[in-house]
Amino acid sequence: MAGSTFGNQFRVTTWGESHGKALGAVIDGCPAGLELSEEDIQLFLNRRKPGQSKFTTGRSEADEVEILSGVFQGITTGTPISLMVRNADQHSKDYSDIANVYRPGHADYTFMEKYGIRDYRGGGRSSGRETIGRVMGGAVASKILNTLGITFLTYTKSIGDVSISEVDVEAMEDNALYMPDAKAAEQAASYLDECIKRGDSAGGVIECVVHGLPTGLGEPVFDKLDANLAKAMLSIGAVKGFEIGDGFAASHSCGSTNNDGFTTDGETISKTSNHSGGVLGGMSDGDDVVFRVAIKPTPSISMPQATVNEEGEAVDITIHGRHDPVIVPRAVVVVECMAAMTILDLLFANQSARLESLQDFYNKQDQE
Amino acid sequence: MAGSTFGNQFRVTTWGESHGKALGAVIDGCPAGLELSEEDIQLFLNRRKPGQSKFTTGRSEADEVEILSGVFQGITTGTPISLMVRNADQHSKDYSDIANVYRPGHADYTFMEKYGIRDYRGGGRSSGRETIGRVMGGAVASKILNTLGITFLTYTKSIGDVSISEVDVEAMEDNALYMPDAKAAEQAASYLDECIKRGDSAGGVIECVVHGLPTGLGEPVFDKLDANLAKAMLSIGAVKGFEIGDGFAASHSCGSTNNDGFTTDGETISKTSNHSGGVLGGMSDGDDVVFRVAIKPTPSISMPQATVNEEGEAVDITIHGRHDPVIVPRAVVVVECMAAMTILDLLFANQSARLESLQDFYNKQDQE
Amino acid sequence: MAGSTFGNQFRVTTWGESHGKALGAVIDGCPAGLELSEEDIQLFLNRRKPGQSKFTTGRSEADEVEILSGVFQGITTGTPISLMVRNADQHSKDYSDIANVYRPGHADYTFMEKYGIRDYRGGGRSSGRETIGRVMGGAVASKILNTLGITFLTYTKSIGDVSISEVDVEAMEDNALYMPDAKAAEQAASYLDECIKRGDSAGGVIECVVHGLPTGLGEPVFDKLDANLAKAMLSIGAVKGFEIGDGFAASHSCGSTNNDGFTTDGETISKTSNHSGGVLGGMSDGDDVVFRVAIKPTPSISMPQATVNEEGEAVDITIHGRHDPVIVPRAVVVVECMAAMTILDLLFANQSARLESLQDFYNKQDQE
Amino acid sequence: MAGSTFGNQFRVTTWGESHGKALGAVIDGCPAGLELSEEDIQLFLNRRKPGQSKFTTGRSEADEVEILSGVFQGITTGTPISLMVRNADQHSKDYSDIANVYRPGHADYTFMEKYGIRDYRGGGRSSGRETIGRVMGGAVASKILNTLGITFLTYTKSIGDVSISEVDVEAMEDNALYMPDAKAAEQAASYLDECIKRGDSAGGVIECVVHGLPTGLGEPVFDKLDANLAKAMLSIGAVKGFEIGDGFAASHSCGSTNNDGFTTDGETISKTSNHSGGVLGGMSDGDDVVFRVAIKPTPSISMPQATVNEEGEAVDITIHGRHDPVIVPRAVVVVECMAAMTILDLLFANQSARLESLQDFYNKQDQE
Repeated sequence: MAGSTFGNQFRVTTWGESHGKALGAVIDGCPAGLELSEEDIQLFLNRRKPGQSKFTTGRSEADEVEILSGVFQGITTGTPISLMVRNADQHSKDYSDIANVYRPGHADYTFMEKYGIRDYRGGGRSSGRETIGRVMGGAVASKILNTLGITFLTYTKSIGDVSISEVDVEAMEDNALYMPDAKAAEQAASYLDECIKRGDSAGGVIECVVHGLPTGLGEPVFDKLDANLAKAMLSIGAVKGFEIGDGFAASHSCGSTNNDGFTTDGETISKTSNHSGGVLGGMSDGDDVVFRVAIKPTPSISMPQATVNEEGEAVDITIHGRHDPVIVPRAVVVVECMAAMTILDLLFANQSARLESLQDFYNKQDQE
Repeated sequence: MAGSTFGNQFRVTTWGESHGKALGAVIDGCPAGLELSEEDIQLFLNRRKPGQSKFTTGRSEADEVEILSGVFQGITTGTPISLMVRNADQHSKDYSDIANVYRPGHADYTFMEKYGIRDYRGGGRSSGRETIGRVMGGAVASKILNTLGITFLTYTKSIGDVSISEVDVEAMEDNALYMPDAKAAEQAASYLDECIKRGDSAGGVIECVVHGLPTGLGEPVFDKLDANLAKAMLSIGAVKGFEIGDGFAASHSCGSTNNDGFTTDGETISKTSNHSGGVLGGMSDGDDVVFRVAIKPTPSISMPQATVNEEGEAVDITIHGRHDPVIVPRAVVVVECMAAMTILDLLFANQSARLESLQDFYNKQDQE
Repeated sequence: MAGSTFGNQFRVTTWGESHGKALGAVIDGCPAGLELSEEDIQLFLNRRKPGQSKFTTGRSEADEVEILSGVFQGITTGTPISLMVRNADQHSKDYSDIANVYRPGHADYTFMEKYGIRDYRGGGRSSGRETIGRVMGGAVASKILNTLGITFLTYTKSIGDVSISEVDVEAMEDNALYMPDAKAAEQAASYLDECIKRGDSAGGVIECVVHGLPTGLGEPVFDKLDANLAKAMLSIGAVKGFEIGDGFAASHSCGSTNNDGFTTDGETISKTSNHSGGVLGGMSDGDDVVFRVAIKPTPSISMPQATVNEEGEAVDITIHGRHDPVIVPRAVVVVECMAAMTILDLLFANQSARLESLQDFYNKQDQE
Repeated sequence: MAGSTFGNQFRVTTWGESHGKALGAVIDGCPAGLELSEEDIQLFLNRRKPGQSKFTTGRSEADEVEILSGVFQGITTGTPISLMVRNADQHSKDYSDIANVYRPGHADYTFMEKYGIRDYRGGGRSSGRETIGRVMGGAVASKILNTLGITFLTYTKSIGDVSISEVDVEAMEDNALYMPDAKAAEQAASYLDECIKRGDSAGGVIECVVHGLPTGLGEPVFDKLDANLAKAMLSIGAVKGFEIGDGFAASHSCGSTNNDGFTTDGETISKTSNHSGGVLGGMSDGDDVVFRVAIKPTPSISMPQATVNEEGEAVDITIHGRHDPVIVPRAVVVVECMAAMTILDLLFANQSARLESLQDFYNKQDQE
């Protein structure tokens, strides 16, 4: 399986190369009855659009989405939703100088070894533009989740060594780095300016908090909620790590500290802490789901690097053009969208957990 | 999908509860022609067997595997291989005191919320014994990988704050903690003794190094090698984090440092460093694949804990019986087995990457 | 994918060879809360058991099912249900005379060409005993469907040229051929006696009527209700054809005849005829689903046949031992069981057709 | 799963409605290295194009395919191939008179019951235009199969009661009905003229012969070659039956007649007859694979019919506009394309049947 489809019941298949004619996604399994317009999706695409600050690539793409199927009179019909973004800018660059060179930190070499051919223009399928399909799928998933009271808060937790000290949502919306801490954002900007100056790049960490999940979401063995989230996250280009709740810090902790006690107000059961990150035994435990992903520094840097070309000769490469000195801010919406698709898919799977739910569902239909 | 199946072409379906009649795995998609005996699988099961040191539970299970199908005259036939381990010891314990209490850090509460019923004996399906199925599947996958020259080195990297300073394979085989550093193993043992004394438990980190992978393994978008490994690892009970190569440390690094240069000896292309952990663009890059998983402290501790019972009343719980004060050493083989199944499955997927491979395969058959 | 798993959400994985240690099925995705005992499954197994009349093989197998997991205190828990039948009789036969000969009409040759090895004892995995796993899966599916008011009537429609003229359920239960027409059953028995006398065998047609399906079951493009039924049926060993509603006869008809009109009693919409067989556009139309499968004559006959052995030499083969002169009666329950699994799986898929169902499901849970 | 994806390793996802903006297919898992142009696909689309004779609908669609991704410099790269056909003619019709009426024999009623909404324009997703996606996927599959020496001969076997008496390929190419028998084609044309005259429609049977398959194709239990073909065929809109080899006729036969003997010329094993239709035990047996599908009469007829509208009122309907009086000729290419996708997918699956193939594959790569 070539692996361009994500999900089992809410299935998103993506396609498209950085400098091909277009990029797109086909959403199969979107339930009928959802109001859906191009604006709904455009809002999410705009969050990942390049050219919005000095920290993002200068490539100017309108990235305008077109709905090609699955929506009738503004409502989803249950049939596949085909979404497309034309590549407007694809003829403007000259890739002849990197056409046969393996850029360090990129997928040029591995693509060539696997397939014997690669579309070298802008990284082809391994370009960051591949995430357009993910964001379109996630936009639809998010809209559905919102109708169920499930919401996301996703932000830049750190860039390089600069980490946030608070989560101030207003501050986040005020800076191009999506950092919910005005002071940290300023420090991170200075750090990135230095990176840019010397032709280098930076990495960072994104944190995502999911609120409003029903308890018991996730399938107990291989399709655990956290397992599926981990896959979703590591499938994003530059991600090198995933942790849920206390994550790696839990490995230094003790059971007496790390266990979250259960408590009750007489009506509802809740936990007295959230070291688990909202997941017990692979199923949501009623608390917020909290996870983090580590993003590596942008591999495209303007400093010269030693590498090898397709002929197997050692060469030096200097990557021209403007590239994001840090991917993190634009990846925030991608992380959120992958989480949304993962969760929606598990919400469908969870509907078949109990026999009585099946019985309720089909009796109810009979009565209509 | 209830999610008890792992893999697409090499598919392992596991079943069984801690105190049910048996636990098992059905391997579908194992190629014909592999010599396979119960001993091959028993060797792996023995690596996770309890009762081997004071740091593992006192439960004595023979955990003897029986091959029920798919092997004829000692050779796999291409049909499903059914493997079973009878639960010999399941009647010996009394679970009445925890039957209706939600143990902190366990899946009791989430199971109950999801299904409305749970097998409370020994954790039922969420017990550590569930990994028996994974180990049996991984034992077969590993045997196949070995014939392709793919090998694993998996060990305890840290327990609590005690971390290894070297990878000494002989030392690893000498201690019950699977730590490849004699001195660190000693320190970790002291730390665990303290934990046991006060009725507490510890966590740790496992590292796995995969050697001998062909370049280009992994599917470039959603089924990346690292994405599938991340899912495999987070699907293991107590795992809270995954990182590949430099992982979270890469988020503090710069592109100029984190990028691995390519070099050549005139014949073969290789990398000058391995910050990537052997994966570029989701495909193996020819270097060793190196990843780590974070394991939380054993949730079963003998210190009293505040919790809630099924009637929604606040209660205190003290968990009797002997439990592993640390899961890490017994999880080493589970991590390795999940990695083996992940990799073998992607080796099959990779066979269809190029048209000429398909042509070679079917022409060759004609000539036989 | 080796294809031993059937279904997406209600998934049944089968394993086992005719003369191996055992045969089994693992049901993953069975909802929690179903009362399930070994007797429930045994009833279905008994319908396919050999040794019940002169028209079935003399092999005497108890075929007693054992539930190994997934059921706690008589109730399903939502975890995988492992079911096993030990092969009691497997050592009694001598297969040395056919060990290296390709029996005409059997899978010996194709198995050998595909895998390079085969378990020749009793046909191995291609034996009729492979259907034990199907029947066990179908027994559980049927029990669930019954709680939803969905019922099956499955019978022998014809054997050789002898076809039923009526559907008399009582008559069906009175004869070993499962023919719901006493007179036809008698004629068919005479015909089979002749076949047996000359060492020959017969085929026939099975018809299945499914009553009580909700309207709209089935997914409109590739997973149509009739498409999934067709696959289910053709996956049974000796089946050579499938038709739904008027089937092949519809190809001779005209639109004006073949179209079923819609009508209404003021409350409910129904059809004035059922040429469609209860399926329109791949979805159930509210009428009974009616389909037929064609079964070929048993390939094991005692007349001598010309064939080839594994060394590629032309040889004559005479198959000794008692074999069913007709498979049809014992295949009736297999057809029904495959239909039950197909339908239950689509009932789960159908739950995600409408957004409002998803909203109802999760709001309702919140209120509990 | 909403079921718009076909195949496991060669996966085709289709989308689009009859009167939406476009229809398309995304092919995931196409191997790299195939020369592919829009002409390759256009040739297949032209075989199903309307407006070619008086027996096909007058709707004039150019149906021009556009390749949007996955092909670089005329060669497939292993990434998803996105194919699109714009609906040029979609604004020309007025559907207001059937917007709320359930046409007999159509999916209007079942769509509405399932989803609560439907795109009534031209049947929406249940239109015959949905097959455009299938044909585009099949065109690519066929091109790959041809490079392996696998070829198809597909034709109209009968229309109404008029059946062919010979298979004359030249004759087939001479008539719009794709009948390989000039005389039968003439009779069928007369029969269709009568149908048209009285506002009625006809059905028929399509036969497909697949030549050049390797022996052993198909997975022995649920993914049998014939099972997957049956599903593929019944998933096509108007198909009501499927049979392989002697099919339903085999149910009237005896084992001594129906069994195909094996023979040898000293080098190659072959069969002395082909009652099996080229499949034994679900795997190809080296002979031609021969199957037939039954197509029902076009449900859209111009005679008035009694039906019900969305308000539940009994109404009469007369369907205006020109519709194909018979679907069979245009479905020939659809049958062939579905068969091609089915077979290619199983060719990939078959690559993992033997351990030595896996070993050969990966050793060979090392040597490169």
